[in-house]
Amino acid sequence: MTDQLQLNPDVESIPYADRKKILDATRGRTDLADLSSGNPDVPMPPYVQARLKEAVESGYAPYTDYYGIPQLRSRIAQYLQETCAIAVDPDSELLVTHGVQQALYLVLRTILRRGDQVLIPSPHYANYDLDPVASGGRPVLVPLDEEDGFTPDPHRLDQAITPRTRAILFSNPNNPLGVTWTRPTLEVVADLARRHDLYVLVDEVYRDFHPQRLTSIAALPGMRERTFVFNGFSKSYFMMGLRTGYVAGPASIIDHVKQLSYVVALCPSYLGQIAALATFDCPRSQVEPVYAEFHSCLELLYDSVTRLPGVSCVRPDCGLYLFPNVSCSGMTSLELSLDLIREAGVITLPGTEFGSAGAGHLRLSVCAGREQVELGVRRLGERLVELSKNGSGGNTLDR
Amino acid sequence: MTDQLQLNPDVESIPYADRKKILDATRGRTDLADLSSGNPDVPMPPYVQARLKEAVESGYAPYTDYYGIPQLRSRIAQYLQETCAIAVDPDSELLVTHGVQQALYLVLRTILRRGDQVLIPSPHYANYDLDPVASGGRPVLVPLDEEDGFTPDPHRLDQAITPRTRAILFSNPNNPLGVTWTRPTLEVVADLARRHDLYVLVDEVYRDFHPQRLTSIAALPGMRERTFVFNGFSKSYFMMGLRTGYVAGPASIIDHVKQLSYVVALCPSYLGQIAALATFDCPRSQVEPVYAEFHSCLELLYDSVTRLPGVSCVRPDCGLYLFPNVSCSGMTSLELSLDLIREAGVITLPGTEFGSAGAGHLRLSVCAGREQVELGVRRLGERLVELSKNGSGGNTLDR
Repeated sequence: MTDQLQLNPDVESIPYADRKKILDATRGRTDLADLSSGNPDVPMPPYVQARLKEAVESGYAPYTDYYGIPQLRSRIAQYLQETCAIAVDPDSELLVTHGVQQALYLVLRTILRRGDQVLIPSPHYANYDLDPVASGGRPVLVPLDEEDGFTPDPHRLDQAITPRTRAILFSNPNNPLGVTWTRPTLEVVADLARRHDLYVLVDEVYRDFHPQRLTSIAALPGMRERTFVFNGFSKSYFMMGLRTGYVAGPASIIDHVKQLSYVVALCPSYLGQIAALATFDCPRSQVEPVYAEFHSCLELLYDSVTRLPGVSCVRPDCGLYLFPNVSCSGMTSLELSLDLIREAGVITLPGTEFGSAGAGHLRLSVCAGREQVELGVRRLGERLVELSKNGSGGNTLDR
Repeated sequence: MTDQLQLNPDVESIPYADRKKILDATRGRTDLADLSSGNPDVPMPPYVQARLKEAVESGYAPYTDYYGIPQLRSRIAQYLQETCAIAVDPDSELLVTHGVQQALYLVLRTILRRGDQVLIPSPHYANYDLDPVASGGRPVLVPLDEEDGFTPDPHRLDQAITPRTRAILFSNPNNPLGVTWTRPTLEVVADLARRHDLYVLVDEVYRDFHPQRLTSIAALPGMRERTFVFNGFSKSYFMMGLRTGYVAGPASIIDHVKQLSYVVALCPSYLGQIAALATFDCPRSQVEPVYAEFHSCLELLYDSVTRLPGVSCVRPDCGLYLFPNVSCSGMTSLELSLDLIREAGVITLPGTEFGSAGAGHLRLSVCAGREQVELGVRRLGERLVELSKNGSGGNTLDR
């Protein structure tokens, strides 16, 4: 083209994440211990595999209902009733999507007008702030403090609210923090949402990893009508690449989200939906030992990390991640993460990948399994001791 | 929520299609002959099924490369070189997506600024005008005439161009028209695009159905830099529900499209990509007889329809669709389509579903196979004869 590029300003504003720098640094290295992965290294449950195989053997791969196979929507509604105590009409209040990622985009693109703001307690899952940007809105990151166990400060949230604030978005259980907000904390957030007439967008994709039955913020009084619950099958059933998620929310808005979903996706993946449908009949014995093993790895990682001199960490209660404070290294978290790849042979993600409130932290993952966790945390520990001997502590912290 | 809904105006503007009225009219009816389907009633080739089965049996379903499995992108680039004579760098000029539908949305959302216009020769694939609307732009439908064999009138296209026109969007081979624009016609469109500095978006998803090697507009002089070629595996390999498509275009823009794709989708479906990769090694003997059978059904449908009194039709050269002129019925195409369900037991789609230029037409499909085609066209013919006897011709045409 002869003219200057004149692209959509929202799309042009989507920031490039530092994750690319990390990926580049790992290229060609086969000797690295992996504490960074978000891809649980576990096969799908045999029951799900068997149902998928049957579907493949049938030979047909048709388009499905635009909004998700009706039987799948029914089972999801039943799950939401049983585990979250929320009644959802599978025809008007539920949409099956290409993963939670797509559901989040669709809802934010539907509810945000130009310049509308979304509160995101932070550190936060790295993509949450990209969605408002890509939708012409503005993410407003509200820092969470390690000293408070990464629970939100109501006063700070309140002060971040403006006439343009439309929604608050968070994951519970939390990625990357590893913590879960329980009912008292959710009451605080719900109160805020009701008082300021905000939507609540809650990503509960790690719900099944929690040993207890968790309260959903959608089940609190007056919240169902303003809450969008996001969940999916990627993490609970190790089918990340099948890209099947969903969102449940108020019918008047889901109606428009569906219209956009049709334009953006036509329909979700047939095989992804077949696998998702199978999960509801999958024997618990095929997944619970896997959750238990990940939980045990997470405790091992927590115990090992908190024994390192100068490192502190909020205790995670479920999931796949830990978010230790390693500011003792004296480097920014990106510098430390790159240093750990080069000098110690271990991949981590810098805390700042999850918002500037993640400064001084790393996100560590147990996705790659016990051996990698053991190897990785040993290398991490040795490098941190080395760095502390060089006395570089405290001078170039990234906040 | 206590306030009025204040949703995104672009999303609120996405029109509801009449297709819902057709779907509603068919509900509960099991006696209908299907001339409306876009879901070819054919299993995936055995070779593709076998590769899919192996992938399922491996048990793992990981996230893939955000922009598509590198090996798949290489094979697509090779296909584009061999069949379209265009050189595409698989790393910087190619993106694998959740079907062509998602690719179209991503590109239009990236290149359109608020109020920018997209020329769409029409009748057109029903979703093309939804993408600009959902992206804050404006579709400008430019009528094609049946008398010209549905080739574009350059003067009419020229006159539709304004300073806000950014792109021209069409499918070739064409759905719903069944016709293919050959090199001389594409030269006219290319000349227009070069003169007015427009992008060209061409959906070539029916390319493999054409018995000859077709020219791609992207291969014409000076066009590679301004053309986005969309294609996928849904129709050629009967894997519609696996949702795997792609777009090839100029690197400077694909770079931003990729960023948006990450936000919207994270990555395409793993199994969809495994199936897509398998298609490149699939013996042609597993698909060509199917294309031949569809072609034979299309000819049968054409011959039968054009024998009906008062019906005319541009001869289709490939694909799954026919677009006959049935204005002799004296009804609008929506009225006729609903009447045919109620009174004759045959489902068709009204031509106006494909833009107002489709008035007086129906889209007929051979997707449901020979038996349905034979039954459907008989019922259609009988009803048209009945209507002409009632002498209702000519008074309530929908244009």
